[in-house]
Amino acid sequence: MEVSDKIAAVHKYIEAFDKQDMNIIRELYADNGVVEDPVGTDPHVGIDAIVAFYEPSLQSGAKLELTGTPRCTGNAVAFPFRAVVGEMKIEIIDVFEFDEAGKIASMKAYWGPENTA
Amino acid sequence: MEVSDKIAAVHKYIEAFDKQDMNIIRELYADNGVVEDPVGTDPHVGIDAIVAFYEPSLQSGAKLELTGTPRCTGNAVAFPFRAVVGEMKIEIIDVFEFDEAGKIASMKAYWGPENTA
Repeated sequence: MEVSDKIAAVHKYIEAFDKQDMNIIRELYADNGVVEDPVGTDPHVGIDAIVAFYEPSLQSGAKLELTGTPRCTGNAVAFPFRAVVGEMKIEIIDVFEFDEAGKIASMKAYWGPENTA
Repeated sequence: MEVSDKIAAVHKYIEAFDKQDMNIIRELYADNGVVEDPVGTDPHVGIDAIVAFYEPSLQSGAKLELTGTPRCTGNAVAFPFRAVVGEMKIEIIDVFEFDEAGKIASMKAYWGPENTA
């Protein structure tokens, strides 16, 4: 998978929130993908559970802004961003791991209460 | 493990580079720790391999500067930083996972050629 494809996936992910478009989420993830957000909580396994997880976030009107450049290596990309939900801001780092088809097989989100303002 | 302990580990890590002090690296890592830097390359397994891996970096005089706030969750912390080695700068995201003794059991570094300037 090319670096440019990974970067494109990050920008599509941000676009999914901008447009509140769940179809983009469905396109990005593998059918058997796993989302752990935040890391340490129960994972959401499979595309149906993933869609259910994203539904309230997309509906909330949350917007994502990159706060640094995505870092691509191996089958992964890690990127720092800020989620803005109304007056709340959360500083997050996401790590995507891609499968051989270029779909997100694993997403891990790193953030805690100390990263909210 | 408290959030404050994880944040302290990040700052000790930066201090190890500032002081070129391998003893700090030895204190931070578990004896059976694993370092994958960058992710996708062969891991360095065990404290002796880890020390051997860090030797040239510490000797190079590389300095680390946080470029965002550390994100603590579960048994992990993720943090974005810049490594400055002479005139070269590398934008990196590290993820530390801690064991029950508060030592780093796993370090993964996310960066690629596109993150160097």
